[in-house]
Amino acid sequence: MIVGYGNVGQAVHRAVDMKCDMEVAGIVSRNPARTVKSQEDSGSSQAPVIHIRDCSCWQKLGADVAILCGGSSKDLPEQGPFFARFFNTVDSFDTHAHIPPYWNEKDGSLHLGYYETMRQAALQSGHVAFISGGWDPGTFSLMRALFTSCLSGARSYAFYGLTEKGGLSMGHSDAIREIPGVVDARQYTHAKPEAIELVRSGANPDFKPGDMLWRECFVVAETNADKIAIQEEIKNMPNYFEPFETEVHFVSQNELDQNCAGMPHDGLVISVGPAGYMEYKNVWHSNPAGTAGILVAYARAVVEAYRNFKFGALTILDVPIRSILPVSQDPIGYI
Amino acid sequence: MIVGYGNVGQAVHRAVDMKCDMEVAGIVSRNPARTVKSQEDSGSSQAPVIHIRDCSCWQKLGADVAILCGGSSKDLPEQGPFFARFFNTVDSFDTHAHIPPYWNEKDGSLHLGYYETMRQAALQSGHVAFISGGWDPGTFSLMRALFTSCLSGARSYAFYGLTEKGGLSMGHSDAIREIPGVVDARQYTHAKPEAIELVRSGANPDFKPGDMLWRECFVVAETNADKIAIQEEIKNMPNYFEPFETEVHFVSQNELDQNCAGMPHDGLVISVGPAGYMEYKNVWHSNPAGTAGILVAYARAVVEAYRNFKFGALTILDVPIRSILPVSQDPIGYI
Repeated sequence: MIVGYGNVGQAVHRAVDMKCDMEVAGIVSRNPARTVKSQEDSGSSQAPVIHIRDCSCWQKLGADVAILCGGSSKDLPEQGPFFARFFNTVDSFDTHAHIPPYWNEKDGSLHLGYYETMRQAALQSGHVAFISGGWDPGTFSLMRALFTSCLSGARSYAFYGLTEKGGLSMGHSDAIREIPGVVDARQYTHAKPEAIELVRSGANPDFKPGDMLWRECFVVAETNADKIAIQEEIKNMPNYFEPFETEVHFVSQNELDQNCAGMPHDGLVISVGPAGYMEYKNVWHSNPAGTAGILVAYARAVVEAYRNFKFGALTILDVPIRSILPVSQDPIGYI
Repeated sequence: MIVGYGNVGQAVHRAVDMKCDMEVAGIVSRNPARTVKSQEDSGSSQAPVIHIRDCSCWQKLGADVAILCGGSSKDLPEQGPFFARFFNTVDSFDTHAHIPPYWNEKDGSLHLGYYETMRQAALQSGHVAFISGGWDPGTFSLMRALFTSCLSGARSYAFYGLTEKGGLSMGHSDAIREIPGVVDARQYTHAKPEAIELVRSGANPDFKPGDMLWRECFVVAETNADKIAIQEEIKNMPNYFEPFETEVHFVSQNELDQNCAGMPHDGLVISVGPAGYMEYKNVWHSNPAGTAGILVAYARAVVEAYRNFKFGALTILDVPIRSILPVSQDPIGYI
């Protein structure tokens, strides 16, 4: 079952279609009319579409797992613990700072964080919630832990946007689009090559976030919008933009559509120790498709954990890779 | 406890020394005099050295795990199942074809393979045997399974020797040294860049082994040796050299010592699907040190599995990455 049928939801649908032993039981959407149309246009298999308000309907789908494809800022904090009461879940919650317990600076409130919230919701209902899949958090998290454990004394570094165009960040683009006066936006992340060279040299440097990357924003504003105010709001958005060098370009919708088509993104994790270095890279022509492939692979592990009564929250660090292989595959073949 | 004190054994000692919560309980060796000297020269911590024949001594060391650092052709097939009767074990058995059940062409005999042999030995004695660690098999195995599961329709490819110098293969160097008339030898593996490009293009090509790499040999021959014959014997050695383009250079011992010092090796795993590509690379200045770091990291997982009564054999696919982190580390910090 897919919850949310934006870019990631549609990509999850295509990824499930490519697995011979999985199918989409249904799609839960806030806008079924649009979802039905997207599904028809995509050439995917056709699954029932249910309005998110029709709880009794989507509960009856009998899905093994709900893949939650909403955004991390608004959708998942509400939908995650809610759906974990009824289904095993997989999501790509990616606000790193809000995964462990945290303190909200704005209103001075304490929060349990997404991991603990999901753990409790899943435990109480007897389900498994795989949180923060995708690539960062996700495969990058896996590599950080693997590399630093295997390379004594090494630290791990992550870089984003190694290609010339840079990496389109959906989360950052969404954040900009939520600013009043903004019609549309794209945010490209660029790695700083000199920082990568410094890491490769084995220096294990101390970076501030702004040393490793910079952010480039292409923004379509409403005709009478206060562009200076928009630019300031972008640059000062905490976590998202505040610690980074940020360039904001205002463009027309036409320019945006022509020059910023597609959703490329990429990144690198690297650790350097006395023995040498380990690195992992993923380069996506389509970031949603790359993310979807990982979510769908780990959906298999969630169902296995559920069948073994391992209720609660799982991260990518908790799952042996064997669990994401189809049962029919001999794991020894990969050794 | 370290069993075997060659290049890998000594590197394991150094890697354990760098972990603040581990120590070397003892070293089991066939040549204690040489081992004592190696240990003194290395600047490592000093651990008791016990002859491999003194079974009652090394049994009493109380080691949590035995890291088996012998070779895959002669040592591990005997030592692996033997030590698994007395200890939890970690090894880097790397004869890929002999991990699953196999048929020995030479004498027409059937073998259970290393995985099943170790599984039975460990199960019967109530221990955990982590087999085929290191990087290939090892981290490469992990990546092959991860990448092909996450990238629908992709295959995985492994390349070796990406650096200009190439990767020093100890197994191939040893094989050359066994040829009559050869005094010393080093074999460097080189990836073919055009093959990597073809994979990156997304073609998912069918390669024969010789399409992906070539082999370069530096050989010191006895004064009156028949160099033509040696060269022919190298090039026609089945599995080792026969399917590959092989260049043989005859050099003096001096030249070999000067130009072929150190044990660099490296490799790349890459998978390309419609969404993009995932790749993993490790580049070792010292191949034994790189391998040792991985073995020592997974020793932690073996002890954890043992404490949870999960007896039997484990591969890198069976172990959640969380298990190789020190207990004191919060896994969420890596997410």
